[in-house]
Amino acid sequence: MAQYKYLLEEKDLPTHWYNVIPDMKTPPPPYRHPVTLKLMTPDDLAPVFPQALIMQEASQERWIEIPDEVRDVLKMWRPSPLYRAARWERALDTPAKIYYKWEGVSPPGSHKPNTAVAQCYYAKEEGLEGLATETGAGQWGSALCFATQLFGLKVKVFMVTISYHQKPYRRIAMETWGGNVVPSPSSETKAGRDILAVDPETSGSLGIAISEAIEYAVTHDGWKYSLGSVVNFVLLHQTVVGMEARKQMEMAGDYPDILIGCVGGGSNFAGLFLPFIKDKLDGSKPDLRVINVESTACPSLTRGIYAYDWGDTAKTGPVAKMHTVGHGFIPAPVHAGGLRYHGMAPIICRLLEDGFVEARAYHQNAVFEAAESFARAEGFIVAPETAHAIKAVYDEALACRESGEAKVILFNNSGHGHFDLAAYDAYHRRELPDYALEEEKIQQALAELPQVPE
Amino acid sequence: MAQYKYLLEEKDLPTHWYNVIPDMKTPPPPYRHPVTLKLMTPDDLAPVFPQALIMQEASQERWIEIPDEVRDVLKMWRPSPLYRAARWERALDTPAKIYYKWEGVSPPGSHKPNTAVAQCYYAKEEGLEGLATETGAGQWGSALCFATQLFGLKVKVFMVTISYHQKPYRRIAMETWGGNVVPSPSSETKAGRDILAVDPETSGSLGIAISEAIEYAVTHDGWKYSLGSVVNFVLLHQTVVGMEARKQMEMAGDYPDILIGCVGGGSNFAGLFLPFIKDKLDGSKPDLRVINVESTACPSLTRGIYAYDWGDTAKTGPVAKMHTVGHGFIPAPVHAGGLRYHGMAPIICRLLEDGFVEARAYHQNAVFEAAESFARAEGFIVAPETAHAIKAVYDEALACRESGEAKVILFNNSGHGHFDLAAYDAYHRRELPDYALEEEKIQQALAELPQVPE
Repeated sequence: MAQYKYLLEEKDLPTHWYNVIPDMKTPPPPYRHPVTLKLMTPDDLAPVFPQALIMQEASQERWIEIPDEVRDVLKMWRPSPLYRAARWERALDTPAKIYYKWEGVSPPGSHKPNTAVAQCYYAKEEGLEGLATETGAGQWGSALCFATQLFGLKVKVFMVTISYHQKPYRRIAMETWGGNVVPSPSSETKAGRDILAVDPETSGSLGIAISEAIEYAVTHDGWKYSLGSVVNFVLLHQTVVGMEARKQMEMAGDYPDILIGCVGGGSNFAGLFLPFIKDKLDGSKPDLRVINVESTACPSLTRGIYAYDWGDTAKTGPVAKMHTVGHGFIPAPVHAGGLRYHGMAPIICRLLEDGFVEARAYHQNAVFEAAESFARAEGFIVAPETAHAIKAVYDEALACRESGEAKVILFNNSGHGHFDLAAYDAYHRRELPDYALEEEKIQQALAELPQVPE
Repeated sequence: MAQYKYLLEEKDLPTHWYNVIPDMKTPPPPYRHPVTLKLMTPDDLAPVFPQALIMQEASQERWIEIPDEVRDVLKMWRPSPLYRAARWERALDTPAKIYYKWEGVSPPGSHKPNTAVAQCYYAKEEGLEGLATETGAGQWGSALCFATQLFGLKVKVFMVTISYHQKPYRRIAMETWGGNVVPSPSSETKAGRDILAVDPETSGSLGIAISEAIEYAVTHDGWKYSLGSVVNFVLLHQTVVGMEARKQMEMAGDYPDILIGCVGGGSNFAGLFLPFIKDKLDGSKPDLRVINVESTACPSLTRGIYAYDWGDTAKTGPVAKMHTVGHGFIPAPVHAGGLRYHGMAPIICRLLEDGFVEARAYHQNAVFEAAESFARAEGFIVAPETAHAIKAVYDEALACRESGEAKVILFNNSGHGHFDLAAYDAYHRRELPDYALEEEKIQQALAELPQVPE
C-alpha cells in the first residue's frame, strides 16, 4: 500500500526561520516614505509595527531563531503533514508525482497563523494592548483572532465588504475566537469614510482595508498594525512551511522539479519555496521551477509593472518596489478574496525580475474545475485561493501525461475552503463569472504611481 | 515545553476492528421484523444491507479483520491525532488532565467516514450501483458522498429539512464530492409524501429520513441502504478510534479515569469507548467511568425507556430493543442535528442497563458556552454535537478544580463545526432557544411502541 502522509514530530519543528535576503542575487530595495518618498527609517515604521518586526524586516541574518513561546503555540498543529496525492495522480492518469503540504490542519484552517502567532508574541513582548488588521477572504483575520486570544491581546479586523457578506462563516469564526470585525470600508476611519462618500456601494479591496487598519492602529494608544502577507518578516515567519517540507520530501525520497503556490501578497507560497529556492540561488539546483499562480482579476505579476507603489489605497503605508496593477485598482469580486491585492511581496518580485521564479494567472471557473477534481480524489475541499495553485498543478500533471515525464511536483495546499462553499455552489450552478482582464482600469491605476527617484 | 499531539504512523493503523458483543455481560437482543415483530433473519435484512455487513451485525468474533482496501482509504487521514488540551486545562485552572481524539482531520471533517469507507467497500464488492442514506446535520451524508466517490458508487442523500436549510454548506460539500442531496421529507418516496401531506411545513427528523432512504434503496435495483450510526456494524467500524487512542494514551503515559462523548445514534462515542470498556467488562478497570452526553431535545438515554421500537418513523426498518423516546417523536430543532434521533445504539443501551456506562443531557446554550471556551483555548471550533461532549468535560474539569483531583479525562472530539457556524452566530446573538423538555410529547410517542413478545 502507498504511503499518503509524511509526518514529523513536534520536536522536529524548525528552530530557526530562513531569511532569504542575504542569499538573493539582488535584494529588494528599501521602502520609501508614503509622503516624502524618501528612504524610510526604522523610526518611520515605529508607530506601525512592533520594534522586533521592524528589525526582522531589514535583517541580514540568514537564520533567525524562533522564540520558544512561538514554537510552543505552533506545536498546537505543527509540523503540518506532507501528503502524496496518490489518488489524484491516478485520477489524472499522470506519471507526475504530486506532493502537497497541508496547512489546513491549523485551527483557523490555513498557513496564516504561522505569522500571526509570531506577530502576537512580539506585540505582547512590547506591552501592546491590541492589533488592528485587514482581511480579504478572512483567512488572515481568522488567524489573527485565534492568535491574539492566545496571547491575551485585543484585535480589530477590517474585513473587505464583499467577503464580509460572501463569507459570513469567516466572520462568525473570528467572533468565536473573540475578535471584533467590521466591514471595510467602514465609518470608523477617515480612510473608510472618504471612500464611502464617493462610492457607498463599493465592494471594498484589501488596499482600502489596509489603510483603515493602519489608521486605526496609529490613532489608538497601545495599538499597532498587523499584516498577513507581502512584507519580508511575514514571508520569514512562513518559512517553517518549506523547512518542514524539505525534511518531509527527504523522508519521501524525492526532491521537487516544480514548486507551485497561489499568490495574493505571496506569503504562503514564499513560505514553501524560499527554503528550496536557496538551492537555486546557490546554483546547486539550477533547473528548479517555481510557479507563482495569481488570479486574472488582479494580475500583478503577469500584467502589472515592476515599480514603486503604495501598499495601500489611501497611501498611508510604506511605498515598496513591487509588481503592481496600481494602488487604486479595485479588482473584480472573485471568490478568491485573498488574491485581490494590487501588489506583491517585494522578495517575490525581485526573484521574478532576476529570473528565479515564474508566474501565471487563471480565471476562476477553470480553477474550481481543478479544485473539484482534487476534492473528489483527495477528499479535501480547498480555499478558492489555493484552488489557483491546484489548477497549475493540474495543468503540469496533464503536461506530464502528454510528455510521459515523471516530474516531482510539490505545492502548498494553503488552506481549506470550508468557509467558501458558496463559491463552489456558484460554480456548480454555472453562476461564476470569468471576468475579462481589465486592461484599461489597470492602465488608469498605473498612471497614478508615485515618482520615486532611483 | 508541553507535548500537544500524540501521533501514530500509517503502519500503526489497526488491522482489526473490535467487536464488543462476545465480551458483553448481556448482548443486545436480536432485531424484530418491522411488520410481524418476529425475530429477524439475515434474509429479512438482505434487501436493505450488503451481505457482509449483515454477517458483521450478528458476528460473535471478537476481532474482525479490516480489508486492505479499507485500510488504504482510511490512511488518507488516519491514524488521527490524540491531543492533550493543555491550554484549555490552564484556562479552566483545573488539575484534570484532558485528552481528546481529533476526528476533524478527515476530509469530511468527522469520524463518520470510518464506517462510510467500509460500507462502500462491501457494497462495491457485492456489485452494487449505489447507496441511499439519510443525514441530519450532514456529517454522515458528507462522509458517504466522500466515500462513494472513491469507490465509484452513486449516492442519494435524504437530508433532514431543517439541516438542509440551516447548513447549506454541508449540502454544497456533498455536491462537490458528487452526491445527490434532497431535503427530507421529500416527494421522491411514499414515506416522504405521506408526511408532507399531513404537515407540509415539518422540519423533518432522522426517523423520517431513514424511512425515505430505506424505501429508495429497496425500490431501486442495484441500490442498498447505508446508515451512519446505531447498528452494531457501524459501532464496530468506529472502533479504530478507540484502538488508536489506546496506543496514544500509552505514549502519553496515562490511562483515562473518565471517557466522554456525545451520542445521537451512539457511534462516535462507542468507537472511542468500546476498546477501553473491554477493561471494565473483564474487571481489570472497574472504576472507569463512561459518560454518554445527549441533547435535552431528544433525551433517549436520560428520559426514554428501554423497550423495543422501530428505528424509523415509517416503521419500515428493523425493530430494536433500545432506549427510545418513541419513533414518532419529532425533537425540537436544536442545531445539533446529529443528536435528534429518537433511539440509541442497542449496544450502548444494553451497557447502560447493565451499569457499565452512564448518561446525561444538556441544553444548547450551556453547550455552546463550553465549546467557545474550548475554541478560545485550543483553537478548534467543534460541531454542535461534539460541543455536548465538551460541556460534560468542562463540568468534570471544574469538579476536579473543586475536589483537587487530577483525573484523566479522554473525550472524542468527533468533528469540526465549520459548516455549523450559524449556530455559534445564534449563540453570540442570544437567539439560541433552550427548549423545555417535551415530557408530554415523549409520553405520547411512547404510547405508540410495538408490543413485542419477550
